[in-house]
Amino acid sequence: MAKEKKLVKSITSRDEDFAQWYTDVVREAELCDYSAVKGCLNYLPNGYAIWELISNDLDKRFKETGVENVYLPLLIPEHLLEKEADHIEGFAPEVAWVTHGGMERLEERLCIRPTSETMFCDLWSKTVKSYRDLPKVWNQWNSVLRWEKTTRPFLRSREFLWQEGHTIHATYEEAEERTIQMLHVYEDCYKETLAIPFVSGRKAEHEKFAGAEDTYTIEALMHDGKALQSATSHFFGSKFPDAFDIKYIDKDGDMKSVYETSWGWSTRSIGAIIMVHGDDDGLVLPPHVAPTEVMVIPIAQHKEGVLDKANALYDELKKAGYRVKIDDSDKSTGWKFAEQEINGIPTRIEIGPKDIENGTVVVCRRDNREKTTVKMEDVTKELRNILETMQQDMYDRAKEFLDGHIDTATTMDEMVEKFKANRGFVKACWCGDPECEGEVKYATGGASTRCLIEDEEFIDDKCIWCGKPATKMAYWGKSY
Amino acid sequence: MAKEKKLVKSITSRDEDFAQWYTDVVREAELCDYSAVKGCLNYLPNGYAIWELISNDLDKRFKETGVENVYLPLLIPEHLLEKEADHIEGFAPEVAWVTHGGMERLEERLCIRPTSETMFCDLWSKTVKSYRDLPKVWNQWNSVLRWEKTTRPFLRSREFLWQEGHTIHATYEEAEERTIQMLHVYEDCYKETLAIPFVSGRKAEHEKFAGAEDTYTIEALMHDGKALQSATSHFFGSKFPDAFDIKYIDKDGDMKSVYETSWGWSTRSIGAIIMVHGDDDGLVLPPHVAPTEVMVIPIAQHKEGVLDKANALYDELKKAGYRVKIDDSDKSTGWKFAEQEINGIPTRIEIGPKDIENGTVVVCRRDNREKTTVKMEDVTKELRNILETMQQDMYDRAKEFLDGHIDTATTMDEMVEKFKANRGFVKACWCGDPECEGEVKYATGGASTRCLIEDEEFIDDKCIWCGKPATKMAYWGKSY
Repeated sequence: MAKEKKLVKSITSRDEDFAQWYTDVVREAELCDYSAVKGCLNYLPNGYAIWELISNDLDKRFKETGVENVYLPLLIPEHLLEKEADHIEGFAPEVAWVTHGGMERLEERLCIRPTSETMFCDLWSKTVKSYRDLPKVWNQWNSVLRWEKTTRPFLRSREFLWQEGHTIHATYEEAEERTIQMLHVYEDCYKETLAIPFVSGRKAEHEKFAGAEDTYTIEALMHDGKALQSATSHFFGSKFPDAFDIKYIDKDGDMKSVYETSWGWSTRSIGAIIMVHGDDDGLVLPPHVAPTEVMVIPIAQHKEGVLDKANALYDELKKAGYRVKIDDSDKSTGWKFAEQEINGIPTRIEIGPKDIENGTVVVCRRDNREKTTVKMEDVTKELRNILETMQQDMYDRAKEFLDGHIDTATTMDEMVEKFKANRGFVKACWCGDPECEGEVKYATGGASTRCLIEDEEFIDDKCIWCGKPATKMAYWGKSY
Repeated sequence: MAKEKKLVKSITSRDEDFAQWYTDVVREAELCDYSAVKGCLNYLPNGYAIWELISNDLDKRFKETGVENVYLPLLIPEHLLEKEADHIEGFAPEVAWVTHGGMERLEERLCIRPTSETMFCDLWSKTVKSYRDLPKVWNQWNSVLRWEKTTRPFLRSREFLWQEGHTIHATYEEAEERTIQMLHVYEDCYKETLAIPFVSGRKAEHEKFAGAEDTYTIEALMHDGKALQSATSHFFGSKFPDAFDIKYIDKDGDMKSVYETSWGWSTRSIGAIIMVHGDDDGLVLPPHVAPTEVMVIPIAQHKEGVLDKANALYDELKKAGYRVKIDDSDKSTGWKFAEQEINGIPTRIEIGPKDIENGTVVVCRRDNREKTTVKMEDVTKELRNILETMQQDMYDRAKEFLDGHIDTATTMDEMVEKFKANRGFVKACWCGDPECEGEVKYATGGASTRCLIEDEEFIDDKCIWCGKPATKMAYWGKSY
């Protein structure tokens, strides 16, 4: 009992100290931990398996839109990184430099990629010649490195896993369309697979990716009321590829510029899952990204026949295609329950002597603890329904939370008040000047524009700070 | 016609200049090319898609044996790399060093991982405490970097993609068993998926991995008679983990050492596919690793109904689960055929007005050009049979080639003669002294021991070089 108490107590209450709760969940669910290299993570089996499910799901969605996967080098020569002025300005302060290879000092420094626009553009500048070579719709799954000063598991680390898609197109319109298309792919995956709702849209001018003409973002709301920038899609126009001199001969014989996009989704999404769905007992995984969908837990397993039946059930579920595990260890039942709950496994099946006698089992959902008694012969069918219902319920609850945390403000008093009380997002109008945004940020203790709202009527005609005519309406929020 | 001639002519004959043929195939099939960073490759869509199929296949096999995937950092602190003496001696000359992060000089240099034994051991030294924590059977898919002087696409490059499995176990026997088990997994994948036969076994003492007690290798025979070390599995005993002070408390309360293994398979395997199966017209992919299994090519596609029928067939094949493409571009039919052949796509389906009239199509195999007329309604079933037969035939042909290139020698005259005439592998006995091996290598123009033969009776009782008692029999061969 002492051990069991410890297991449950090891997670701080979510409402008491959200940051500590997050750290506790990451540690207790054994998702990742810090390595011997400052700011770099070890992604442990429980954490990496979630990433495998997310990336398989995303990769399938990518391929349905015609994306091809490639792999370009980890190292970028300094002169390439410098080709586009805004880009180098944005990334120079946070790259790691390789200066020696083997026993020799290199003639030119190489940085470890913080992102690969420069490498894709360099390759295309050498290989794209005619309209026949367009479009290129490429993606790579890899890790990138950014020398961050403060780091947090999944949310910000020096090296992190992601995918970076890069495309070039013959026309402005086609590239713009691809930028939006990939934003939609991300939106679908967040909604359908991660059960996470969001607001989304264009970033304000000064929040754009280094070198981009437009950046679109997905902003999800964490349980503590802070926003997490969860995936981004960038439109570069032709400025970036022009810097690399990528030109093609069109059907009409003219030499033309190409138009570029890039888009990325990282392991930060695992942080979003934790902070949207988790509770005081630990992780709660949406079934679609749960490496184990169901844990079979025999009750009173020392009694004759229990382990046999439990194992038969395990085999049956496995055969039916479930991601299933069985805990037939010599731990106590309470301990097994606590572990399954901490690890966020969506369901457990309890099977004991009484169940066997009745020809039933008990399925217990992780999210709301709801227990359903299911006939043994119906389990393989019923469990799928329970998991799908749970997936939908988790989305609905998160959506309700999000909707309940979107407010509006037309005065600074209102704005300040709302960020004190309810947190979440506040819709407010703005003149577009970054200085006004800075003032709002200071006054609210951290709220800035998360994304612009471009398909709704303005709620006011004045900037919430300076009172000059509003040119933009935005979701404002505090963010990770 | 001029263009078509050029396409075919662009590949050098395999028997005329094998090295140039290899380079031509890699380039013309657009598998990879050199990047802006010396010795580092761009893996292009055609090449990377092969790697995706190989890695999916391998990953599935790994998981069936209980392997869990993880991801550990790219960077290794210098003091960790230095912990095991043989290991640092082996790798120090070929690692790249990061000395600056952002704008600051680092206090300790970090190397880009050449392999990750040190990082796994460091993690385990902090987390493994009891027999309950064992075994750890982990793997990661990543890239590693070794500062090679001479490089060749897929065969040797500074950065390459691979998987590295790392395990620790409570006993010597269990670790040794895992080493062999993973060798067998590799053997099965080479045989069943890549259609490549091989010889395999333990490496001679001085050919072992830096820090290992035993290295097992798979050696496949390329068409030019040279061997390619194709995958390796290492047994470390407890020396390596002891250097990192990984100890566990056993059931009996005693503090004990753990036993370690590691095993790796890289994109070099794509080089093996090219050099075992390719021919003068380009790449020939075994169906199991072909990103496109079948290319539908409409004949006389300007004629009414042809494109409709061809597209309907494409849809049907896609629905039936084939990896299928259709070439309905405005290129000539001959050009389309040549492209399909260069790219190694295992089959093409020719469908023209006459076929449509007869309710049939023609399936043409890439490996032997065999054409089969198949009834339209049987295509989805018959094509699978044709592909499976082709896969088996490709293995059988490669096996026949391998068997025809294994010889024996008991004198140096014989040995020299056989490496002049037939090449391939020669079985010969040896005292085990690396100096004798060096002499044989010099006399034969490059043949060394590829792996030891431990389950056959010795063909001689003397070392082929010095005449002293033989302690080992080995496959000798020239190698990449």
